[in-house]
Amino acid sequence: MTTIVGVIGGGQLARMMIPAAVNLGIEIRVLAENDGMSADLAAFGVGDYRDLEVVLAFAETVDVITFDHEHVPQEILRELVARGIAVHPGPDALLYAQDKLLMRQKLSDLGLPVPEWARIENVEQLAEFLADHGGRAVVKTARGGYDGKGVRVVSHAHDVDDWFMALAEDANGGALLVEELVDFTRELAQLVARRPSGEIVAWPVVETVQQNGVCAEVIAPAPHSSGKLAEVAEAIAVAVAEGIGVTGVMAVELFETTDERLLINELAMRPHNSGHWSMDGSTTSQFEQHLRAVLDLPLGGTAARDAWSVMVNILGGPTTGSLVERYPGAFQAYPSVKVHNYGKDPRPGRKVGHVTAGGDDLDDVVYQARATAAFFQD
Amino acid sequence: MTTIVGVIGGGQLARMMIPAAVNLGIEIRVLAENDGMSADLAAFGVGDYRDLEVVLAFAETVDVITFDHEHVPQEILRELVARGIAVHPGPDALLYAQDKLLMRQKLSDLGLPVPEWARIENVEQLAEFLADHGGRAVVKTARGGYDGKGVRVVSHAHDVDDWFMALAEDANGGALLVEELVDFTRELAQLVARRPSGEIVAWPVVETVQQNGVCAEVIAPAPHSSGKLAEVAEAIAVAVAEGIGVTGVMAVELFETTDERLLINELAMRPHNSGHWSMDGSTTSQFEQHLRAVLDLPLGGTAARDAWSVMVNILGGPTTGSLVERYPGAFQAYPSVKVHNYGKDPRPGRKVGHVTAGGDDLDDVVYQARATAAFFQD
Repeated sequence: MTTIVGVIGGGQLARMMIPAAVNLGIEIRVLAENDGMSADLAAFGVGDYRDLEVVLAFAETVDVITFDHEHVPQEILRELVARGIAVHPGPDALLYAQDKLLMRQKLSDLGLPVPEWARIENVEQLAEFLADHGGRAVVKTARGGYDGKGVRVVSHAHDVDDWFMALAEDANGGALLVEELVDFTRELAQLVARRPSGEIVAWPVVETVQQNGVCAEVIAPAPHSSGKLAEVAEAIAVAVAEGIGVTGVMAVELFETTDERLLINELAMRPHNSGHWSMDGSTTSQFEQHLRAVLDLPLGGTAARDAWSVMVNILGGPTTGSLVERYPGAFQAYPSVKVHNYGKDPRPGRKVGHVTAGGDDLDDVVYQARATAAFFQD
Repeated sequence: MTTIVGVIGGGQLARMMIPAAVNLGIEIRVLAENDGMSADLAAFGVGDYRDLEVVLAFAETVDVITFDHEHVPQEILRELVARGIAVHPGPDALLYAQDKLLMRQKLSDLGLPVPEWARIENVEQLAEFLADHGGRAVVKTARGGYDGKGVRVVSHAHDVDDWFMALAEDANGGALLVEELVDFTRELAQLVARRPSGEIVAWPVVETVQQNGVCAEVIAPAPHSSGKLAEVAEAIAVAVAEGIGVTGVMAVELFETTDERLLINELAMRPHNSGHWSMDGSTTSQFEQHLRAVLDLPLGGTAARDAWSVMVNILGGPTTGSLVERYPGAFQAYPSVKVHNYGKDPRPGRKVGHVTAGGDDLDDVVYQARATAAFFQD
């Protein structure tokens, strides 16, 4: 009897669950959006995750459904649950990853630290929020944003007229989320995993470096995070996971403010770019942990294996040729840096892979990771 | 353009190449002996590796041919090479893994330390060897032995009459290998990797513990192996790899004698049970290294990640149910021990998985590894 995990979505997150599944002797089946995606090796088939019949047919072949992304519609998720199919994370939790307004409201209700925010439906409400917050703010679409998309820094009430127009034309109505522009010194991320029966584990809090709204580098653990800062970050993520009932891996993106507070920025209810370092740098990778969690198995150790791990994304990739063609140079120069290649065609800005270096000297580890990644970018 | 490695043989060694291939974005295709084997996820198809047409058709779809085992006939290997197909390790090297008499002769010619040995064709020759070596010896069939099969400790010249009879009936003739019964304190294994262009790297020498002729435990590095012992073991393995022209990963099994010598016992020209610890305990696993080597890519770092790594095989598995059914207990008790499940049905004596523990305190690491493995055996 083989245990089978079904993953909806065929991107690199599904792909990186494959090695963990192979090691544990768990079968993984992927419902991919298209042929030739990152997780092709484990592809069960290609189908539209917005089509109930497609998702149901897939679900019948597996023991638990989980996700490469958070975009499966609520009505489909709820129908799966109604039919007794194990879905992790479940629809109640995913709701907050799908809708930033609901997420902000829920976190506020839970008493968790978030930036000041408001729900706005028109220019007047935005103008009022701007007036109350020094004339600048961040506006986000409630749905559909990722990697910096659907996020705009504004200083005029008319800066998001196009979004208000789109809402007005949307039969479902809706609203935008406006938030104070947080005065932060850096961004952190706290990765946790929670299993249905309640156990939660946390990895060390990490520092994330964003470029153009996309995660570029992660340092694990976050420098200067020993003691209270790490405790607070973990406590916030645990409260979120329990408060929302998340199952599987969840990343909480945090701002560390100039006045030493941590505020929740975004949530991701799945393995997350900020946790890729764990594949090489922690006792249990976030992908193995996600499989353990969604199968309600006891969770694995989350200790760091090196004093410092640094992950650098390969964004875009080479303008000519494949990543593999760059292996001779990169491997020769940096034999101990681990290279992860998502099997995607290079394209400007696309996440096509990442590298992770580890060691005792942070400056050297940062240098090795960046220098290795540079072999894969022109 | 995807780089494709073709693996002949669908056992657990092929299976454990899959995670490494996924991480590196290298496609792996397996020619399996049967349906439902360990490496099924990457199966290209099922076919007989002794059938030239089958192997040629497979080889045409890949960039390099390598192996899960050493049993592909020489005439097929040589035909592949004659057609310009990259085969690693090549037939000249594999010859010595396929025939223990040729291996012993070659190692003797290279001046490397081996037990005293002789080629014997009849009872009289065995009697003479026994008389010269204290009345006891080890007799091995030249071909076909593994995991203790084809190996017999003898004290009478008639103890292998069945094997002599089989040779007499074999149209190809042949002979047996007889060796002195080495007075050893323990067994070691030295894992190295060599790429076609010549680079060689070595992992730390390990201690192996055999039970009934099958590897049961591996301690990495071998206790009391710092300094000269490690140097000698590495020098022997490097000399073997260069002398025989091995490409890919090779394990040299060694006896450490009571008079402090190292003698070569067996060679394995592929990833080897004695190197499984490297998946969790070294910067580069033997499976990633094998892929790098057969693709002639620069080799990865071989440092140990923990002071001690201990691997314990899961032999046989539970008498009822699957390995996965034992995960709740094992994971709860030992959250940081890594479990590897080969996806094979339990059967007495069969290698169905292994576990690896790591840490600073050898006693504790041994205990954790053994205790975790015990969850999977009745």
